[in-house]
Formats: sequence, structure tokens, C-alpha cells
Amino acid sequence: MKAEIITIGDELLIGQVVDTNSAWMAEQLNLIGIKVGQITSISDHREHILTTLREASERADIILMTGGLGPTRDDITKTVLCEYFGTRLVFNQQAYENIERIFRNRGYQITPLNRAQAEIPECCTQLLNVNGTAPGMWFEKSGKIYISMPGVPFEMKSLMTGEVLPRLQPFSQIAIVHRTILTQGVGESFLAARIEKWETSLPENIKLAYLPQPGIVRLRLSASGNDRKSIEKTLSECTDELYNLIPEYIFGEGEDSLELIVGNLLKANSYTLATAESCTGGYIAHMITSIAGSSAYFKGSVVAYANEIKEGVLGVSAQTISKYGAVSEETVFEMAAGLIRKFKVNCVIAVSGIAGPDGGTPEKPVGTTWICVLTPKGAQTRKFTFGEHRGRNIRRAALAALDMLRQQVIKH
Amino acid sequence: MKAEIITIGDELLIGQVVDTNSAWMAEQLNLIGIKVGQITSISDHREHILTTLREASERADIILMTGGLGPTRDDITKTVLCEYFGTRLVFNQQAYENIERIFRNRGYQITPLNRAQAEIPECCTQLLNVNGTAPGMWFEKSGKIYISMPGVPFEMKSLMTGEVLPRLQPFSQIAIVHRTILTQGVGESFLAARIEKWETSLPENIKLAYLPQPGIVRLRLSASGNDRKSIEKTLSECTDELYNLIPEYIFGEGEDSLELIVGNLLKANSYTLATAESCTGGYIAHMITSIAGSSAYFKGSVVAYANEIKEGVLGVSAQTISKYGAVSEETVFEMAAGLIRKFKVNCVIAVSGIAGPDGGTPEKPVGTTWICVLTPKGAQTRKFTFGEHRGRNIRRAALAALDMLRQQVIKH
Repeated sequence: MKAEIITIGDELLIGQVVDTNSAWMAEQLNLIGIKVGQITSISDHREHILTTLREASERADIILMTGGLGPTRDDITKTVLCEYFGTRLVFNQQAYENIERIFRNRGYQITPLNRAQAEIPECCTQLLNVNGTAPGMWFEKSGKIYISMPGVPFEMKSLMTGEVLPRLQPFSQIAIVHRTILTQGVGESFLAARIEKWETSLPENIKLAYLPQPGIVRLRLSASGNDRKSIEKTLSECTDELYNLIPEYIFGEGEDSLELIVGNLLKANSYTLATAESCTGGYIAHMITSIAGSSAYFKGSVVAYANEIKEGVLGVSAQTISKYGAVSEETVFEMAAGLIRKFKVNCVIAVSGIAGPDGGTPEKPVGTTWICVLTPKGAQTRKFTFGEHRGRNIRRAALAALDMLRQQVIKH
Repeated sequence: MKAEIITIGDELLIGQVVDTNSAWMAEQLNLIGIKVGQITSISDHREHILTTLREASERADIILMTGGLGPTRDDITKTVLCEYFGTRLVFNQQAYENIERIFRNRGYQITPLNRAQAEIPECCTQLLNVNGTAPGMWFEKSGKIYISMPGVPFEMKSLMTGEVLPRLQPFSQIAIVHRTILTQGVGESFLAARIEKWETSLPENIKLAYLPQPGIVRLRLSASGNDRKSIEKTLSECTDELYNLIPEYIFGEGEDSLELIVGNLLKANSYTLATAESCTGGYIAHMITSIAGSSAYFKGSVVAYANEIKEGVLGVSAQTISKYGAVSEETVFEMAAGLIRKFKVNCVIAVSGIAGPDGGTPEKPVGTTWICVLTPKGAQTRKFTFGEHRGRNIRRAALAALDMLRQQVIKH
């Protein structure tokens, strides 16, 4: 089974909106074993929509559309679909009740424009859009499947997950199971070299994808086959081997974030945390506090950007800074030690580095970063040499610091 | 003149990469008066590329392609283009010298695979790719223009800006001039109501686009016409009227960021800044320190997430917190006053609020935020009521605080 995606909307063609829907949909379809052959973005223009539908149906078995389902006059997808399928719009009670429910929750009155959103082509099956007023639609014609969804990403996503993917799954004929392992502190090429033997010995029905993000590499394992039980078993064995191979780099799976995992560990241990940040400039504190409920374990932070703050607020000695420099093992240790006393916590992270683009020297080039972590399980200082890009250095230093904390907290 | 964009690469169709190139290219083309009719993403597959090129050339005058120009075997765009144009690959000396230069700078040896990147179809004009080893290519056939560029965004962008757009500009036949005004502290619909009269009285050749981002609304004015001088004058007059209409919301133009503008103002005034952050959790400090060179004016920050830090480190009195609450005018003022003494700066920002999702009360719902700004120009405290979404509340509070600081620093 081959699919195509058609995204409809003028905003895509003037560059006002980046089409993130297609990549997400393509990934989800691939994950259930359906390949996407083409993605086409077109404007809200009757003839263009009709031609694109016809051309797509010649190449693909499943055609997914997003966009053009709003209540305003420029959204014409529904009437064009009626024309394409030779049918007419009819009122759909279930769709109307959904619109009513949404308006009631927001405390709004339904307008005639919104009532018209409950009208759908007679030949289609309504797909319930719990997050919005434009219903999803499922058509079948001459052995091909057509699906129309709104373009708002979170409406499209819930329709895909709740309605579309479960209905498409039986067509893919093969079972596919995935696991995504999250690693930190290792580059893609170095990681690839470390797990090369394991990777080449993977069974043929298991595929590995490297999905790098700044500071994090996700490893997605996809197992396919006829028997779900047996591929789940194989996948689980392969993943166990990977855990044994690179335990120091793996921090979670799936949609976990490092700041959430660290937060949960601190909470579980009844630990409290504070950060003393120089080059990261508050970014670690920001990551930690982006998690709802972080006040349970996070007390606060001193961003000691200037040396006088390192000395005056954190109590780093002026001699230490003049002798070893602000970016040194001695300084981050004194930053950490000063903060743990001042904030009366039992875990601290201290970071000092050269984020760049200026400030580098031959001995301490841009990217040089010292991190100190103190917890009830022990103390550790470590030097890192990141890259030349300021924003990326800040991000990598924050992730490295959180991972040092995580590793220390999970120690026995 | 009508254009189409074709992006080539398997990674787009499995959802591994979001196609951000197309939106950027579409925007740039629209900005010089060339409309984009369709965007098509296809895989590195010979026949599919040929068909897509043929179909696009029937609808459009200009066809822009990205991707498939890497040195490895799966990148086939160049050989397919030879087939399409009935030509052959020939060695291009200028392209080779560019590759040599790039390899010399990186300290690498040129491999035969890289040397092959200097071979391009005989009938095309080479477009110099200063940022990469794959040359851009310009073809003309039967009155249509075809442009092929690498898919790496920063290579494509420099090719577009340096080579492609200047060559396409003469084809657009109309002059277009743009200005983007940046506003902060006002929602899209409220802003629209405020400037409605001005908007409806705009000359016909001036178009207005609202480009909202979290906390910021960009207003893009595009003027088009035959005479560049005269449209520049009209645009300038309209923009002046807008400045007079909403001076309190405008903080910059074009690609400015609020943190950069604030940083430049502080530097110009030789002011120094520190922040005392509760609900923003270090995000303001992170924004400020994301600007290279911010150490010239930023000394640091106390993230006082727990009340005991507000008291113990910033010197907020326990009575103030128990009487008025941590989210109150009195508390943010004491946070600011404590910090300005402790950090020996002359500007401070203090923020305390309820980011959510928990912690709201009927009197102080989630989103309630107090901000205090102290500078040599004066003192101000202000209450805001943002929304329900934690991440957005943090971002909006940070932007509001930076804008309060900006407004105070520019006061006479």
C-alpha cells in the first residue's frame, strides 16, 4: 500500500506557515508500514485541488489531505470533494453535536457558519475531531482511500491517532513495533562506531534509525513481521543488548526528556536541587522549571555571569579565579560548594565555560566547559570541550550537567 | 511569472526531516513578486523526478529544486537532470576550485567522490555555493527556468540570496518593498482592532500581514508597484502613521529580537543588569545571555523559586510574603530592591507569578504575574494576567519584563 499526502492552503505557498504536518504524518504512516510516495502542497483553488487528487490517485492507494476545512469562504475543500466524488453536502448529526459540545465548553454561541461545518459529503464516513469543529472525512472510491482532515496540527494529530491510523493499520498487512532509545553525551558518528557490531548483527527485520537532535541522539528500532508476539520478543532482546553495550549514554525512551527524568528521580529520592550557572546563563534552571511541579525539588539558582557575583554571592575566592581562571575545576567546585551552603539543598550543579564566539584562548578554546555536580551520592567535576556555536554550547552544557546529575542519583 | 518548488529526498517522505526549505523559499519568492503554485516533495527516484519535472513545467515558468546533490550514490538529481535536458556531465573548474577551497579550510583531502561534485550538466550555468561542495545549477529550456540547489538549508539560503533571487528579480516585472514592524504586549485581535482604521485606509498597493509568534506579533507591510522610489515613499509614510498609532507596542523591525535590542540599549547607556526570577525560572537570564557579548552588561541572576530563597538570598521579608503572597507587588518590589543591592547593578528585573498548571486561586488564577523593573530612569511594578499554558506564560512574562525595561531605558 502506497500513500500520498496533499496539504491545502495559501499560507503554505507564501511561506507564512512551515508544513510540519506532512513530516509527522509520513512518520506515523511509515511506522505502521505504509510508505509515502509524494507530498504535495497546493493553494485553496478548485481546479488545482481536483487535478492534484486525480494525479495522486493514479500513483497511490491512500490519499491523505489536510487543510481547507475552516468555516470561512476561502476554505473550499469540502465542496471540491463533493465535486470529485459526485455527491452533495448533507447535515451530520454527530458532527453537529461535537461542534455544540466544543462551543458550550468555550461559552460561545454557534453561528450559521459553524453549523455549516457539520455538513459533510454524503458518501463519506465522518471521523470525529474531538479537538475541533471541522470533522475528519473518510472516502472510498475505485479501490482507493481518501482521507480529509483539518490542517491545525493538534486536531490533525488526534484524528490520525484516534481514527485514521487504526483504520489504516489493517491495510498494511505487516505488524510493526518500534522502540526509541534516547542517548546523551555522545555524537552520532562516535555512537555508530561504538554499536557497529551490534548494528550489523541485527536481524533483517529490525531497522535502526539515528535521529540526532542538538546534544541528544535518538535511536529508533523498528521491527516488522507477520507475528507481532515474535517481533516484540526479538525487539526486546536487541534492545537489551543495546542497554548492555552503552548503559552510560542511555537516559530514557520514547518521549522522555532529560529534565523530566531528572526531576522524577529527585522527587523519588526527596532530593532538592539548585544550580550555579555561568556560561549556561540560567538555561539549566529554565529547563528544570519548564517541568510542571518542579517546585517540589527545585529551590533556585544563582546565575553568576560576572566574576564578582561568583565571588560575592557564591563565595568563590578571588585567588582561585585569578590563579586557575573562571573556567576551571577549582572555580566550579567552589561555585557548587558555595551554593549548596547558601541554598540549603542537597544536590547542586555548577557550570562555567566559554560559550563563544569570543573569549577563547589556545589553552581554553571556545566550548571549554567545567561542570561540577554534588549530591548525597558523591561529588564529581568534569571537563568538556564542546563546539564553536554559542547556542549549541549552552544546550550541550546543560544536557551534560543534567546527565551527570542523573548518573550520580541513580548510583547505588 | 509562476514558480513551483520540488524538494527531493527520501528523508522527507519518511518524516525524518521537516521540509523548512520550501516555506523559506516561497516567502523569498513572494517577496520579489513571484508566486509559488505548488510545492512537491518526492524521493530520490529517477522516474518520479522526471515525471514531476515534466508536470511542473506544464504549470509553472520557474522550477526550483533542492536536494539529491550529495556525493553519495543515493543522490541522483544531477544524472537525472542530464537525462531530462538531454546533456552530459562535464567537469567545471570554478566548482572544483570552490570544493578545493572548502576542503583546504577544513584540513581534509579531496576524495574522488568529492571531485565528482565538480561535474555538472553541460547546458547549465554554475551557481557558486560558497557554503558547500555541491554547486547550484541554472537551466533554461523552452522558455522555462530550472534551478537546482543542495537541500542543506544554509547552503540553499546563501545560494538563493547570492545567486538565484538577484537573477530572478528582473523576471518579476514589479517592484516590491517590505517592512516588518515588531510589536510586543498586545494580542493579534486587539491589535487589529486598534489599527483597523489605519489598515482600511492603506493604499491598494500596500498589503498588511499579521505574523503572530508567542508573545510577539509581527506586522509585515508589502508595497508593490512599477516605480520603486514612489512605493518606498508611500510605505515609509504608512509606517510612520503606524508608529504614531501604537508607539507603546513597537519594539523593533525586521529580524531584531527584544533581548538584542534591550542589550544594545543597556550597552549604549553603560547600564548593568541583573534579574530576580521566580516563575520565569531563569528564562529571562537565558534570553539575555543567548546574545553574544552580553557579559558587557549582564552580571547575573537569582532564580528564587522557593520562598526561602526569596527571603534568605534576596532579603524579601517573611511578613511581606505571608501578608501579600509570593505573587504580589510588594514581593516583586522587595525582590528587585534586594537584588539591586546585592548584585551592585543599576537595572533589575524581578518577576513572580503563577506559571501553572497548578497553584492558581480564584483571586490569583494561573497566569497572574507581577513584574518590577528598577533603572536609573525610574521604578515600575505591573501586574499581568497571562493564559493557562505554562510554557507560554513563562515566555510572555519574560517578553513583558524585557519590554518594561526597554521602555524605561528609552525614557527621556
